[in-house]
Amino acid sequence: MTKIEGIFTPTIVPLDDHGRIHEEELRRYIDWLIDQGIYGLYPNGSSGEFTRFTVEERRRIAKITIEQAAGRVPVLAGAAEANVKETLAACEIYCEYGATAVAIVAPFYYSLGPESVYEYFREIAVNSPIDVTLYNIPMFASPIDVPTIQRLSELERIVGIKDSSGDMTSMMNMIRAVRPSRPDFVFLNGWEAALVPMLLMGCNGGTNALSGIVPDFFRRMYETTRAGDIEAARQMQFQLLGLFDAVVGNFEFPLGVRAAVAARGFQVGKSRQPAGPEQQGRLDKIVESMAPSLAAMGYDDLEKFCAG
Amino acid sequence: MTKIEGIFTPTIVPLDDHGRIHEEELRRYIDWLIDQGIYGLYPNGSSGEFTRFTVEERRRIAKITIEQAAGRVPVLAGAAEANVKETLAACEIYCEYGATAVAIVAPFYYSLGPESVYEYFREIAVNSPIDVTLYNIPMFASPIDVPTIQRLSELERIVGIKDSSGDMTSMMNMIRAVRPSRPDFVFLNGWEAALVPMLLMGCNGGTNALSGIVPDFFRRMYETTRAGDIEAARQMQFQLLGLFDAVVGNFEFPLGVRAAVAARGFQVGKSRQPAGPEQQGRLDKIVESMAPSLAAMGYDDLEKFCAG
Amino acid sequence: MTKIEGIFTPTIVPLDDHGRIHEEELRRYIDWLIDQGIYGLYPNGSSGEFTRFTVEERRRIAKITIEQAAGRVPVLAGAAEANVKETLAACEIYCEYGATAVAIVAPFYYSLGPESVYEYFREIAVNSPIDVTLYNIPMFASPIDVPTIQRLSELERIVGIKDSSGDMTSMMNMIRAVRPSRPDFVFLNGWEAALVPMLLMGCNGGTNALSGIVPDFFRRMYETTRAGDIEAARQMQFQLLGLFDAVVGNFEFPLGVRAAVAARGFQVGKSRQPAGPEQQGRLDKIVESMAPSLAAMGYDDLEKFCAG
Amino acid sequence: MTKIEGIFTPTIVPLDDHGRIHEEELRRYIDWLIDQGIYGLYPNGSSGEFTRFTVEERRRIAKITIEQAAGRVPVLAGAAEANVKETLAACEIYCEYGATAVAIVAPFYYSLGPESVYEYFREIAVNSPIDVTLYNIPMFASPIDVPTIQRLSELERIVGIKDSSGDMTSMMNMIRAVRPSRPDFVFLNGWEAALVPMLLMGCNGGTNALSGIVPDFFRRMYETTRAGDIEAARQMQFQLLGLFDAVVGNFEFPLGVRAAVAARGFQVGKSRQPAGPEQQGRLDKIVESMAPSLAAMGYDDLEKFCAG
Repeated sequence: MTKIEGIFTPTIVPLDDHGRIHEEELRRYIDWLIDQGIYGLYPNGSSGEFTRFTVEERRRIAKITIEQAAGRVPVLAGAAEANVKETLAACEIYCEYGATAVAIVAPFYYSLGPESVYEYFREIAVNSPIDVTLYNIPMFASPIDVPTIQRLSELERIVGIKDSSGDMTSMMNMIRAVRPSRPDFVFLNGWEAALVPMLLMGCNGGTNALSGIVPDFFRRMYETTRAGDIEAARQMQFQLLGLFDAVVGNFEFPLGVRAAVAARGFQVGKSRQPAGPEQQGRLDKIVESMAPSLAAMGYDDLEKFCAG
Repeated sequence: MTKIEGIFTPTIVPLDDHGRIHEEELRRYIDWLIDQGIYGLYPNGSSGEFTRFTVEERRRIAKITIEQAAGRVPVLAGAAEANVKETLAACEIYCEYGATAVAIVAPFYYSLGPESVYEYFREIAVNSPIDVTLYNIPMFASPIDVPTIQRLSELERIVGIKDSSGDMTSMMNMIRAVRPSRPDFVFLNGWEAALVPMLLMGCNGGTNALSGIVPDFFRRMYETTRAGDIEAARQMQFQLLGLFDAVVGNFEFPLGVRAAVAARGFQVGKSRQPAGPEQQGRLDKIVESMAPSLAAMGYDDLEKFCAG
Repeated sequence: MTKIEGIFTPTIVPLDDHGRIHEEELRRYIDWLIDQGIYGLYPNGSSGEFTRFTVEERRRIAKITIEQAAGRVPVLAGAAEANVKETLAACEIYCEYGATAVAIVAPFYYSLGPESVYEYFREIAVNSPIDVTLYNIPMFASPIDVPTIQRLSELERIVGIKDSSGDMTSMMNMIRAVRPSRPDFVFLNGWEAALVPMLLMGCNGGTNALSGIVPDFFRRMYETTRAGDIEAARQMQFQLLGLFDAVVGNFEFPLGVRAAVAARGFQVGKSRQPAGPEQQGRLDKIVESMAPSLAAMGYDDLEKFCAG
Repeated sequence: MTKIEGIFTPTIVPLDDHGRIHEEELRRYIDWLIDQGIYGLYPNGSSGEFTRFTVEERRRIAKITIEQAAGRVPVLAGAAEANVKETLAACEIYCEYGATAVAIVAPFYYSLGPESVYEYFREIAVNSPIDVTLYNIPMFASPIDVPTIQRLSELERIVGIKDSSGDMTSMMNMIRAVRPSRPDFVFLNGWEAALVPMLLMGCNGGTNALSGIVPDFFRRMYETTRAGDIEAARQMQFQLLGLFDAVVGNFEFPLGVRAAVAARGFQVGKSRQPAGPEQQGRLDKIVESMAPSLAAMGYDDLEKFCAG
């Protein structure tokens, strides 16, 4: 079985001038990420703007990603659809495509309580032909609380959780609740602004949007932390905080991430959510905004940085 | 031009034992609502669980509703899809079907700021072949603030707003900002717990989930308020608060509404979001929960009430 | 027994150049308010910055206010102190001074739940020698929820509530819960941005900071609403919304109120909370900010307005 | 100069049967804490329910604490009063008493923005005769944001911050913003549920309510973390999470802490905020609630634990 650990990139989707999936560029981007040393790929996540694509497009994005990865790295495919039945259909198809596992965000729009969140995931877990990781992102979707995660971890098909809450205490409580009975359960941190401390406190890895911009930095940061060099890891975490402010803090997610991937030499095109002139003006200057953080991280040659 | 005013019912969708749209029962329900005196229909709203259906199903729901209304009452069709292009495709189709106007909720999942909300609706408004009403529901979707509504009201295609925020001050500020330059702009209140005061302060009507349970009461309440009988209108508003607690306050929306429509004799089936045993237990007793409020409203014969 | 109804002004406290209570100006301000037709006074409220004074100063403010009112209008004296014992000491003293009743805000700093809020008020109510009104202001203090108000209304000493939540539905639910068993219970609305609809739905009056700036307007608005002239009352409410934005929306409360009272010709001095240059800059232009709203309200002669 | 680092206990205040400060027991408690190895004391904090005492009582609490510590450990005295002038008076007195520094919470009740928070602390800092630490606790008081901390760190008198937000990212951003220009600036973490990772990421220590219950455990945890034994430190952090749930998560703060100190053999008496029967019932069983966590921490002899 492929182990899910290390840093996964939740990939953005390059679009052409007509707003259609730019398949060639997506494949080139995936190759680059793998070449730069990323541990895994995560299509159809929040960075991938999954809600802004049609069902058919989401399938195509997953298919391209799995094909192009070609077994070199594991692929966690985002499989959330309109309801349990549609989500299960996606699970089946992504299983056929050869995904390592699927990731499923808690129901959104309606704000559901723990009981309904449990029922939703339980019904998926007992019917899915492929391993499932939960995706907790309370700022966008119904929260998955600690007792619910504990109950869900009793289901074999549920093999891990990606948590993007940024709440360190909550994530430690999850680990504390689940690890004793499920030592294999995978905890991935989706909030890079606290990645190093989360890894130190027991996470198996991260799914971090910024790793789509500086994948090699993330690989080094992960390995430095794992090696127990706290002082160096802390320095890298602090450097990352600067990049986080410049790319995530300043924009509606994931517009800054898309602009930064474009800055590395990929033709990502415009997001399907039209940006207003004020935000677009700031997006146009993202390289300038990132420059001090990039310099601190060791990317001192901006020309080289922008060449991929 | 059909005037949009009075009480619109955001219709729930009856499902059969396999979770498929129960077309026959939906048609029967629409006839009943019109017979009971409702002013208009609003398919594919939050009560209609639009996010839990596929694109094709949402189209079918709109088509059935418009066909069955057959011009007897206006139909506001919820047309929000994954992105601007898909939403415009829905606008075109619903225009062909003969909808009076479409209603479009602000983008959800991602939390967008005023500038992006404006760009989103602007791009739709300048390309739509049919009139558009905005749908503000900040508990589920990106908020549409007062300055944004004012800017959007400059676009001819945008003819009104449905506001479900429950914030009376905000709704008065909208009216104050827009009416001077757009006296025809329609304000519909989607928060029945404050319907009478909202009507008194200038709203043109409401789109209220509870009107799908007691449409005749809503018609009387609306007419009483319009007639200026404040004392009677206040009494009716207070009676409605009891029903609101029993049907909306106690359940994850819109499960209580579905159960209450079932109680009136319609085969609505189970929601696509599985309910846990705790909530289901309370849903099973919804007639009991509603009974005191219904009695106060004049529905003293529960047997008759449950016969439609 | 003096009836508590109509508009009460929560008075600001004029300070001299050394930041001490400016007694003479406070007395002159109270006379002016009464002359302008205000129904009652409310010292030591949020407008009165009660938390920024010492125990001794709060007593002096209450004493001056009661003395100066001299029975012409009722006085609701804010009596919240550090704990139950100290609050009861204030109740006793304000009773001796001749206050009509006291107003007590729910405990703040710590965020208490319903059970503790109930215990706090219960212990005060059973020991107080003077009638008590509850003060609900959830943006600053622990909320007093509807079931708690219902339980507290069983205590004879508790005679009413001032609600500054701005939540219309919640206030209607309070009235619905309490009036049947306590028809004498007084509901005062402390959120002027929704005063007219609140009065229409059953409130007995308001305690409104802006009434300290335009007391005669508030008297007219109250009487117009009571007389059932909805159309005129609605116009006045909309005019008031403009003043609310200019005086409350733009500043940290109650700095704008203090500046506006100063604009009417009173020497109010500087607040004890130092204002930064950015906010001070806007405070200096408050007359300009208020001007359009004042004109709409009929205060077209600004010179006269600024002369008191 | 005494270094502020390590674990400080924000002390609770024992009360006698009449609700008065139980001086003898407070002195005995302070001796015990010092004997158990605590690094410093922090009277008049949130654990010390400073808002529920009078000005005179707060002074007495500070005096007793400083006297009893008698130079054995540093004392950070909470000095927040009603306004700048009163707070400065407390600074002067606590300086005379011999406090190491004062701690001042941001203004509360009113919710102030960054500019006002800055002005408040600046005016205190330039006039205080004693070093000042800021106290950030956004769930109870106006937040002190990162840019404000950076500006305030330019003032010599401000020597550190206690942060109880529980927000790891925010605390790292503070350190990142301030350390380069003020390497001596002290960062104390007030959220024990994330103490170990906070220490690993650069905090100098913590001010933690639970250290008033198990001071020796906190000393060992601090030293283990400082020694770089990540694995052991992580285990201790996870054990602490259990105690945190039992003592903080289950009760209105700081009732659980008071009950747990009582369980260790101190006569703490009843809080001045009356607890309702439901909460009191759970407080009565706090030893049972704590037992599993205590056992994991090595306190397996509950009888011994309850003997102090």
